[in-house]
Amino acid sequence: MTQREDWLDELAWGEDGLLPAIVQDQASGEVLMVAWMNAEALRETIRLGEAVFWSRSRRRLWHKGESSGHVQKVREVRTDCDRDVILLKVEQVGGIACHTGRASCFFRRLDGGQWQVTAPVLKDPAEIYGKE
Amino acid sequence: MTQREDWLDELAWGEDGLLPAIVQDQASGEVLMVAWMNAEALRETIRLGEAVFWSRSRRRLWHKGESSGHVQKVREVRTDCDRDVILLKVEQVGGIACHTGRASCFFRRLDGGQWQVTAPVLKDPAEIYGKE
Repeated sequence: MTQREDWLDELAWGEDGLLPAIVQDQASGEVLMVAWMNAEALRETIRLGEAVFWSRSRRRLWHKGESSGHVQKVREVRTDCDRDVILLKVEQVGGIACHTGRASCFFRRLDGGQWQVTAPVLKDPAEIYGKE
Repeated sequence: MTQREDWLDELAWGEDGLLPAIVQDQASGEVLMVAWMNAEALRETIRLGEAVFWSRSRRRLWHKGESSGHVQKVREVRTDCDRDVILLKVEQVGGIACHTGRASCFFRRLDGGQWQVTAPVLKDPAEIYGKE
């Protein structure tokens, strides 16, 4: 570990080596999604200028948009007072962050004791990810 | 558990019974903080109309602002596609969400390989929480 990676060591990585990362649209302020990062994912995010996460289900680095083309160009990286959450401000290419084809993953709002879907599917996921 | 709490059961609570909750300022869109909720914390949040979290360090419900007065009036509750993150849109009373006396907990920005503090302390924490 070189001195130039002190900024990575300064984060309070969890016991599993991960931290949650919030992704926010820089222009609109809309919260788009939450995913997880390990140190390598954050290092790659900085190197590429595009969001790279750690996929807990696939157990590998996940360059967001690698299948869909919906990459996230990273304009700002922040952390919080406890240094245990990462906040990315991004430009969302294609305007779609969610695998359901919606702009944001936070499309369910609690209303009258029920989760109501509040945002439209902009593009059919079958079309985004291919139909094979 | 009554039928009227289906909305709580529909969330994908973690093995520890918790989910991360992002708090966003409804007016500015600024992400203010991240904390944790169990089902009781979310139920209390809805009942009071003010954010209630589960404090992992103190192992008890934590009505945000109970010491500082900086309560968060909840205007909207959302969840994401995987139903494993909660998003609160709030009115932040006092304009201070962070225990350091800053508006937001996300006051550190990565800049030139270092975490730079980008936001001022609006009120001395000793004054917020009392000096005893």
